[in-house]
Amino acid sequence: MPLIKFDLVVGRSPEQLQTLLDAAHDAMVRAFNVPERDRYQIVHQHPANEMMIEDTGLGFTRTQDVVVLTVTSRPRSAEQKQAFYKETVEALRDKCGIDPQDVLISIVTNSDEDWSFGLGEAQFVTGKL
Amino acid sequence: MPLIKFDLVVGRSPEQLQTLLDAAHDAMVRAFNVPERDRYQIVHQHPANEMMIEDTGLGFTRTQDVVVLTVTSRPRSAEQKQAFYKETVEALRDKCGIDPQDVLISIVTNSDEDWSFGLGEAQFVTGKL
Amino acid sequence: MPLIKFDLVVGRSPEQLQTLLDAAHDAMVRAFNVPERDRYQIVHQHPANEMMIEDTGLGFTRTQDVVVLTVTSRPRSAEQKQAFYKETVEALRDKCGIDPQDVLISIVTNSDEDWSFGLGEAQFVTGKL
Repeated sequence: MPLIKFDLVVGRSPEQLQTLLDAAHDAMVRAFNVPERDRYQIVHQHPANEMMIEDTGLGFTRTQDVVVLTVTSRPRSAEQKQAFYKETVEALRDKCGIDPQDVLISIVTNSDEDWSFGLGEAQFVTGKL
Repeated sequence: MPLIKFDLVVGRSPEQLQTLLDAAHDAMVRAFNVPERDRYQIVHQHPANEMMIEDTGLGFTRTQDVVVLTVTSRPRSAEQKQAFYKETVEALRDKCGIDPQDVLISIVTNSDEDWSFGLGEAQFVTGKL
Repeated sequence: MPLIKFDLVVGRSPEQLQTLLDAAHDAMVRAFNVPERDRYQIVHQHPANEMMIEDTGLGFTRTQDVVVLTVTSRPRSAEQKQAFYKETVEALRDKCGIDPQDVLISIVTNSDEDWSFGLGEAQFVTGKL
């Protein structure tokens, strides 16, 4: 159920984009232990001047490969979140050649009643999930 | 005051898009009982490969009509949220022919002090709203 | 660390856009007292019919200049948020000629463990920030 929005600089081919989304999804499934079809990914591609992603003085070098993941999820433990960060940067590095310095992730938490996956039902409330 | 972002696959005409936004707004006004001009809608249109919207095993068939609504709102009761889901899918089905299986909604809650509607004021805090 | 998404109507030049982002960043640095390189800005530009931004009856006139800022941040006091609203509209008015009636801001709060700025680490948790 996490809904993940990806903000990227334009320039990847459709195949590269698909590989990136698959890698990120695999990492999320592992870290959060959710079903394989618990996949809700939306991509926004931008000209480079629409993404100003600096580093709060941490010393990271950001490139055109930069990936910003904005995640909305029901509550997850700090351990799950840290596993998610680690799994994601490793997957994007291994499958897409993206430098771990180029991956920024931000999570926002909501609750069971905040999701309707279809049919206008709140499946976490009705017991269907 | 809910701010609603719509992620859609490209292909609708401007008229179809307007009908969709009007229908979603009417549903929101009914479910949350807000003023008619409490309307804050932003649309993102995507090539189909930028939206990977599956079903967590619920068995939904998603099509090019898929609509993802991401809502930011002050607190609403579970009943209001469930009414919002139901009203929205019914409105999108009746006014736009969108299958209720194609509508995913996710809500995030914030608070009074988190809104400035203009002039740099926090209208829920100052008492103007 | 606030991550700020800007939704705008298309039509600004790259220079105008840069001026807008710089002005908004300066305002945020002042209001939240964060480091200069604590800059995470993403822009979405839209045809006018993709942004329906009304006024809840407050009497604002919205134009093609309308700017919607969606902010994700660790907790900030009500005072900081109100300073942020004020600093932002003043900066956008003074540097970009944007009417304060045209600026809507919405904030969502998350926590320390919800941020990874790179390397798959949660820098607020590990003590690097």
